[in-house]
Amino acid sequence: MRYLMTFSYDGSKYNGYQKQIGAKTVQNEIEKVLTRLNSNQFVSIHASGRTDASVHAMNQKAHFDFNKPIKLDIFRYSLNSLLPKDIYVKDIVAVKDNFHARFSVQKKEYIYKINMGEYNPIEKDYVYQYNKKLNIEAIKASLQYLEGTHDFKAFVKVDGQKDFIRTIFKIGCVEDGDLLTFSFLGNGFLRYQVRNMVGTLLEVGSGKRKSEEIKFILDSKDRTKAGKIAPACGLYLKEVFY
Amino acid sequence: MRYLMTFSYDGSKYNGYQKQIGAKTVQNEIEKVLTRLNSNQFVSIHASGRTDASVHAMNQKAHFDFNKPIKLDIFRYSLNSLLPKDIYVKDIVAVKDNFHARFSVQKKEYIYKINMGEYNPIEKDYVYQYNKKLNIEAIKASLQYLEGTHDFKAFVKVDGQKDFIRTIFKIGCVEDGDLLTFSFLGNGFLRYQVRNMVGTLLEVGSGKRKSEEIKFILDSKDRTKAGKIAPACGLYLKEVFY
Repeated sequence: MRYLMTFSYDGSKYNGYQKQIGAKTVQNEIEKVLTRLNSNQFVSIHASGRTDASVHAMNQKAHFDFNKPIKLDIFRYSLNSLLPKDIYVKDIVAVKDNFHARFSVQKKEYIYKINMGEYNPIEKDYVYQYNKKLNIEAIKASLQYLEGTHDFKAFVKVDGQKDFIRTIFKIGCVEDGDLLTFSFLGNGFLRYQVRNMVGTLLEVGSGKRKSEEIKFILDSKDRTKAGKIAPACGLYLKEVFY
Repeated sequence: MRYLMTFSYDGSKYNGYQKQIGAKTVQNEIEKVLTRLNSNQFVSIHASGRTDASVHAMNQKAHFDFNKPIKLDIFRYSLNSLLPKDIYVKDIVAVKDNFHARFSVQKKEYIYKINMGEYNPIEKDYVYQYNKKLNIEAIKASLQYLEGTHDFKAFVKVDGQKDFIRTIFKIGCVEDGDLLTFSFLGNGFLRYQVRNMVGTLLEVGSGKRKSEEIKFILDSKDRTKAGKIAPACGLYLKEVFY
C-alpha cells in the first residue's frame, strides 16, 4: 500500500531535507521512525523535492510504501510521538500505486519572509534580517517579468540538468509593517531559484537595479548577471499541489 | 558614567537571564563582552528583572557603569559585533547616577502567545502550542478579576518575599486566527505570576473553570487553588517603563 504524508519542519535544526550519511536531515529522521514502526524493515520516503539546509516547510509531501495494515490516525500519532519535536506529520492518506510525490506534482508554492525593520534576534532563523527599508513599488513593478513561462537558467544553480524552463503562475508581495512576504506559485522550481529571484528583487528594492533589468537577466541565461542569493532562513515550502 | 541599555534576546537558547556559574545566561554573555570592551576590568549589569529559562525579551533594560569615555553608536555597534546573534542591543543612553534599572521601574509589559490551531514545529519555541480551541469570551470575562491592585500570592512562586501586592493596569486578549496573544501591563510582576495567570486563564477557556473562580483564587492566596503554570516559551518581556 502507498501513502502520502503531509509534514512540516523547522529547517534551522537540519542539514536540509535530503538523506546524507553522517548528517542530521529530515528524511533521515522520518525514515528511521517509519522503519522502526515497520519492525525494522527499511522504509524509504519520496518527497515532492528536497529543501536546502535551514529552509522550512509548512506542508512538505512525501509518499512511502508500507505493507503492514495501518490505521491512519493511530499511525500518524505513533509517528509524531517518535519524531523529534521540530518535525510534525499533519496528515497521511492512502494513494494509488502509481502516485509519485515528486513526479505527480502539479504546482508548488514557496514563501519568503524579510524583516525590513530593526534586527530581531528572536526571529533570526525564520525571517531574513535585511533590516533596511525597500522600495516596494519598484519590486512590484519587476514581478511581471518573472511571472509566466521562462528559461530560468540565470537564477539557478546549474548542476547537471538541462531543462531550465518553468512557469510561475503568480508572485505575491505583501507588506505588513516591517515584514515583507513574497509568495511564488509555479509548476516547479529549480535549485536556488526562489532564493536567487528574491536576492535579485532585493537589489531592485534597494535601488541597485532597475525593475526592467529582470527581463535582461532572464534573457542572458547567465547566473552571474542575477543578484546575490538570499539566505535560506527566510524560505518556506508552503504547499504542494497534485 | 551610568548607561541604560535596551536589548532583545531569544530566550530559547539560554538558561534564563540571570548570571549563573557554569550556565549559559544572557547576563553572563553581556557582562563578558562589556568587560572585554573595558580592557578586561569587570563590568556588571543590572537588569529591570530576571526572565526565566526559555522566556524571550523584546525590550529588556539594564544599567551599567563604564568609566572610559564612549561614543554611544560605536559602542553599541561593537557590543553587537561581539555578542551572540541571539542577543541584540537596540539602544544605549546615558542616565543619571541615581538611576537604577530595577528600582526605577514604573511599569512593565509582558505578552504571552498561544497557538490554538494545529501543532506548528516551526514556532514551537516561540508560541505555546496549546493546539485546541478556547472559549475567548469566557477568558475575557475573567480578566476584570485580575486587573487592579491585588494580593497575587495565589499566582506566585513564593521564595522568601512577603509582599505580593501588585497592580495590573490592563490585560489585553487578542485573537488573530489561531493565535491568541495576552498582554499584561502592571507596576511589576512576581516570579511565575504571568505564567500562572495564563495557565489559569487557559483552564477558564477550556471550560474547566468558571470566569468568576479567578476572584476566589485571588482571595485564597493559595497557589494550589490556581491553574497549572503555562510553559515559558510563549512569554515575552515586551516593555519596561521608567
